Amino acid sequence: MSDKRCRLRDLGLQVGILPTGKLNLITDVPGLKVGHCTITEGEGKLIPGQGPIRTGVTIIKPHSGNVYREKVRASSYVFNGYGKTIGLVQVQELGSIESFIALTNTLNVPKVADALIDFHLKENPDIGISTTTINTVVGECHDGKLNDIQGRHVKQQHVFEAIENANEIFEEGSVGAGTGMSALGFKAGIGSSSRMIEEGNLSYHLGTLVLSNFGGKNDLSILGHKFDEIDDIEEERVKGSIMIIIATDAPLNSRQLLRLAKRAPLGISRTGSFGSHGSGDVVIAFSTSNTIDHDNKQELIELKIVNERTKLFKNLLRAVVETTEESILNSLLTAETVIGRDENKSEAISIQKVKKLLSK
Amino acid sequence: MSDKRCRLRDLGLQVGILPTGKLNLITDVPGLKVGHCTITEGEGKLIPGQGPIRTGVTIIKPHSGNVYREKVRASSYVFNGYGKTIGLVQVQELGSIESFIALTNTLNVPKVADALIDFHLKENPDIGISTTTINTVVGECHDGKLNDIQGRHVKQQHVFEAIENANEIFEEGSVGAGTGMSALGFKAGIGSSSRMIEEGNLSYHLGTLVLSNFGGKNDLSILGHKFDEIDDIEEERVKGSIMIIIATDAPLNSRQLLRLAKRAPLGISRTGSFGSHGSGDVVIAFSTSNTIDHDNKQELIELKIVNERTKLFKNLLRAVVETTEESILNSLLTAETVIGRDENKSEAISIQKVKKLLSK
Amino acid sequence: MSDKRCRLRDLGLQVGILPTGKLNLITDVPGLKVGHCTITEGEGKLIPGQGPIRTGVTIIKPHSGNVYREKVRASSYVFNGYGKTIGLVQVQELGSIESFIALTNTLNVPKVADALIDFHLKENPDIGISTTTINTVVGECHDGKLNDIQGRHVKQQHVFEAIENANEIFEEGSVGAGTGMSALGFKAGIGSSSRMIEEGNLSYHLGTLVLSNFGGKNDLSILGHKFDEIDDIEEERVKGSIMIIIATDAPLNSRQLLRLAKRAPLGISRTGSFGSHGSGDVVIAFSTSNTIDHDNKQELIELKIVNERTKLFKNLLRAVVETTEESILNSLLTAETVIGRDENKSEAISIQKVKKLLSK
Amino acid sequence: MSDKRCRLRDLGLQVGILPTGKLNLITDVPGLKVGHCTITEGEGKLIPGQGPIRTGVTIIKPHSGNVYREKVRASSYVFNGYGKTIGLVQVQELGSIESFIALTNTLNVPKVADALIDFHLKENPDIGISTTTINTVVGECHDGKLNDIQGRHVKQQHVFEAIENANEIFEEGSVGAGTGMSALGFKAGIGSSSRMIEEGNLSYHLGTLVLSNFGGKNDLSILGHKFDEIDDIEEERVKGSIMIIIATDAPLNSRQLLRLAKRAPLGISRTGSFGSHGSGDVVIAFSTSNTIDHDNKQELIELKIVNERTKLFKNLLRAVVETTEESILNSLLTAETVIGRDENKSEAISIQKVKKLLSK
Repeated sequence: MSDKRCRLRDLGLQVGILPTGKLNLITDVPGLKVGHCTITEGEGKLIPGQGPIRTGVTIIKPHSGNVYREKVRASSYVFNGYGKTIGLVQVQELGSIESFIALTNTLNVPKVADALIDFHLKENPDIGISTTTINTVVGECHDGKLNDIQGRHVKQQHVFEAIENANEIFEEGSVGAGTGMSALGFKAGIGSSSRMIEEGNLSYHLGTLVLSNFGGKNDLSILGHKFDEIDDIEEERVKGSIMIIIATDAPLNSRQLLRLAKRAPLGISRTGSFGSHGSGDVVIAFSTSNTIDHDNKQELIELKIVNERTKLFKNLLRAVVETTEESILNSLLTAETVIGRDENKSEAISIQKVKKLLSK
Repeated sequence: MSDKRCRLRDLGLQVGILPTGKLNLITDVPGLKVGHCTITEGEGKLIPGQGPIRTGVTIIKPHSGNVYREKVRASSYVFNGYGKTIGLVQVQELGSIESFIALTNTLNVPKVADALIDFHLKENPDIGISTTTINTVVGECHDGKLNDIQGRHVKQQHVFEAIENANEIFEEGSVGAGTGMSALGFKAGIGSSSRMIEEGNLSYHLGTLVLSNFGGKNDLSILGHKFDEIDDIEEERVKGSIMIIIATDAPLNSRQLLRLAKRAPLGISRTGSFGSHGSGDVVIAFSTSNTIDHDNKQELIELKIVNERTKLFKNLLRAVVETTEESILNSLLTAETVIGRDENKSEAISIQKVKKLLSK
Repeated sequence: MSDKRCRLRDLGLQVGILPTGKLNLITDVPGLKVGHCTITEGEGKLIPGQGPIRTGVTIIKPHSGNVYREKVRASSYVFNGYGKTIGLVQVQELGSIESFIALTNTLNVPKVADALIDFHLKENPDIGISTTTINTVVGECHDGKLNDIQGRHVKQQHVFEAIENANEIFEEGSVGAGTGMSALGFKAGIGSSSRMIEEGNLSYHLGTLVLSNFGGKNDLSILGHKFDEIDDIEEERVKGSIMIIIATDAPLNSRQLLRLAKRAPLGISRTGSFGSHGSGDVVIAFSTSNTIDHDNKQELIELKIVNERTKLFKNLLRAVVETTEESILNSLLTAETVIGRDENKSEAISIQKVKKLLSK
Repeated sequence: MSDKRCRLRDLGLQVGILPTGKLNLITDVPGLKVGHCTITEGEGKLIPGQGPIRTGVTIIKPHSGNVYREKVRASSYVFNGYGKTIGLVQVQELGSIESFIALTNTLNVPKVADALIDFHLKENPDIGISTTTINTVVGECHDGKLNDIQGRHVKQQHVFEAIENANEIFEEGSVGAGTGMSALGFKAGIGSSSRMIEEGNLSYHLGTLVLSNFGGKNDLSILGHKFDEIDDIEEERVKGSIMIIIATDAPLNSRQLLRLAKRAPLGISRTGSFGSHGSGDVVIAFSTSNTIDHDNKQELIELKIVNERTKLFKNLLRAVVETTEESILNSLLTAETVIGRDENKSEAISIQKVKKLLSK
């Protein structure tokens, strides 16, 4: 299993037909940044509350400004609500996001949300005093197979560190919130991909980041090839979840973003999942265009949005499916083997076997 | 019961605090027109399929142009889905309405929808051939207490007649779709009301039209006065439904229109209803601003919409509650007593008793 | 293109891992029957309102009894609401279906709904007189490429004929509502498939029927093989829609049926679709267990439902994805080439090419 | 303003027609308990993060057992999603609640959720290790007018104290989560009410608890009497929110509980609110019957549920509207005047004025 990790396109493979952005990462959306904080401590037997720790936090900064002051238009789609993502009530009502988006493990959602509040209060000392409160958005998957999840080891300092680390270039695989996650029978975690959508003289980016932690090995399908063609699959393990963050600089309103979000499960499907009962599969989509000025008191707001009856809009839908599938595959291909609590092992998928499978 | 019918404000009474439009009708929204066709035939014993007939159709024309070519932004809210309104699937997905809106009785929905298709095909002969198909919107209540509902007596000619009759001035009470309807123990049917919303140099209209057919007499409340204070109420009858159409020329997107639509049940509540099981209570809201050009092929669309953080938006919400309550009361006060099938009688509410109740 | 039409399993191919029912049709669900009426008349140039006609209607009878009297528990999921399906408002509110389910073309929905009312009134002469009204469910796709859709040629007699024809054995492909439909670049229409779900001494059936009319040839994927590997694909055509009917005799409540319905798009995805803008993709799911007695006046109802935390439930979810994909492929493989209005041709997919593609 | 606080029925007044439970509190639902922890510290000028503190937490224990092990069937309805309630994603998907329900202020939601996790982990040490994780439900309103909300002063100890305090008898008004809340121009907070629903030999309880913090004084309406008839109302203040918890021992499934939840805004309406933009109005409804055994691995579950076509069900709907209105009025009548940060004062409504208003 010691083969070097890589991304799908490093193997000469690709998903779909649209061109990628420069980095083929969600950060191809101008201004967007992603930061991780990875926490790995101890090994051996689980002592609840103490370790071993295989967890972390990942932060998506929608743009480089003050997100509370310049909210992004957004929507969300709960494909399978067996999950604990917070903040969606307001996202759906107002069609906007006003905080960084954080990903972490299930039981750590409150601690991470509280740290996000700390951060945004510092930037906006009027929150809750002379202006409204703040709605933070935190998604999660369950890393308890490898991690002492009861310990809730992601503290304020880790959230701040992930914010500090946020950059255009970021790692995939067993990092940040992905540290303890597994999908489709193998070690997984963070994955990303992007597409360019161009029409006439318009040019937009759509990028996706996943936190993958779903499905069983017997379901795994890579670019149409069932993995069980080349490997012995013993038993089914189809718990876990997936968080999908979709970002674009195309000017979309929240209804249109919902339509995009609803396509993400089509990308999940192509990696083999059937959306099992115990999987909390949640999609959050936002646009960095037409940001909403928190302090604007004018009665009317002017905006431009995409005409849905165009090829441009169709390709945005297509880009969601393509980037979701590719992000999941990237999360598998980049993740290193991790041994966690009670010597539980989540093995990296063999790059050699993938090559062999795809060359059939 | 022979007292002259009137509207609420003819009694020196009013709902709420906002000023009404010129007519205090939904047609205060510029360009909007309403037309009825009332069908009253026969009396005595019900012969299913033949009569007696106490039914009709009411048409709302959102604006004076070709609605298929210039769609209006829209949303809908199903407060109680025990109903047969059609067309809402597409309204929710695309946030727009592309046909006239028709109201009729429950079993007549398909015939009326088919007649609407006839009408719009005539205006748009490319439908289904060189352009897309059409989504018609038809709402309903159950007039079977007075009417031979199995007979489905609203034919194409009646729909066309209602379209022909559409005008700024229109009747309320036992007319059009309201011919056979009863609410809160009395004869009811069509009612309407409007409000002006003004901020700075902006001035908008919001108007509501209801087809009321819900609730029991024991629940009836008029401007905070329970009707049973002055009348003997024998038994409960809490079936039926209500259709609520909300129109405005304020520039709202479909998410904002949904927020408006969700307030309509608050107006229903103030007339005494608790939203009984058997009541199909459906709200449709649309804006005549920022119409959507069916033939526009440009990638981007420019629009202005209302800033939700303004008093302007709050007053739009308030106007929904006020006009819904007032429209229901108008439907009661204007409706004449009707005797229908099997001598079933739906009595007009006594204006004298209402005066007495309100002067307490 | 003269190769003999067949089903996927006739080619020695299969979707997924679960065993099929006896017929591998939705009618493997005990008591359920499907009937078609196919209308093919005229050829050559389109004369709107007259022909040529390439359309029809398909009826799903949930069980052999009086469905109004014995309603089935149901739910629906609108994956893409660019469609005109009627009846879903009440299905969602009450979690039940009380009529046959009909499929037809878009503009014919009202006429078919009206005919369904005729049928059910005959069986239940108390409807709208001494009991409630009726909610009919009619889904649709747009067959205007081949058919004179403006003509609305499906009349009452055709609906009655389809009801009459209802049987356990039924045809797939260019029949009934599928007569004028195309999908993924080829002639398509009706397709079906089923699965057995067995746990301990329990044994249930889940069956799916699709009316397929979506996607472009450049997207077509068969069991993981992209069709464009073996064929020249000229241009994209990604309009159209898909209706998916899922039936089971497993005892599920409406919330659980919604969870099933939401998995159907995963099956669509595996045939290559990305859920394009103009596609009305609607899923209806029902269970024939725990039927609801219309005339039951008792306060409490006893029922058994599936425990969601079991392998049984997971396999029901899995069965939805498998049968949806296989139904779509069956609709393609069984449909014959049809030439319609203006000599528009929708070609059957070549079985030889499919064999070649799959043997790669 | 020194008149003695009381409940609505202490004034000889009542809402609606159904009989109350023994205590006229949500705790009339057998086994249900409510506990508060009130935190009042400091006065004078706001020092963000330090005080003054006027806040707290309120805990609803659905039954006396281990709620994670015996989940209650539940649903939620977001009337106005401008709010930060957490846990609803899973409540909607699975139709159940598996933790205590906590209410607190907006920015304290994460800290309270984290404390709830602590509590339930102690009772269920297998969470996240050998069984699934846990979904906690925490609702909120914004008490920043009186309280140093940035300080997030509700700590683990306060949550545990509220749990400890849980009892059948509990206080209303400015206690627990209600400590810093105001509604309709006056001091408000916690209020509750209940109804008995009896049919044949069946007897059920429905109880409601509100955390009221919405609306402006100019809107206040008490049993149909507008408060501005007797008081000078200067200006509008229509921010804030309301949380509504509805509990019953009637056996309802999650779809039926959603229908109940959707009626709560009708009760809000009767106190004068129009559901303003800035108000997060969230309803959570649950039934203590047919609890879900976390450890049950059997394929099928037997249950009894209420037949919706009965007077029993109608009265459950009616009870929601009645108890919501009465709970809000109780929250106003029982709350004492509170002076908070920066000497901001929220005055108790004058019982004398209410008496005067109602005697008109």
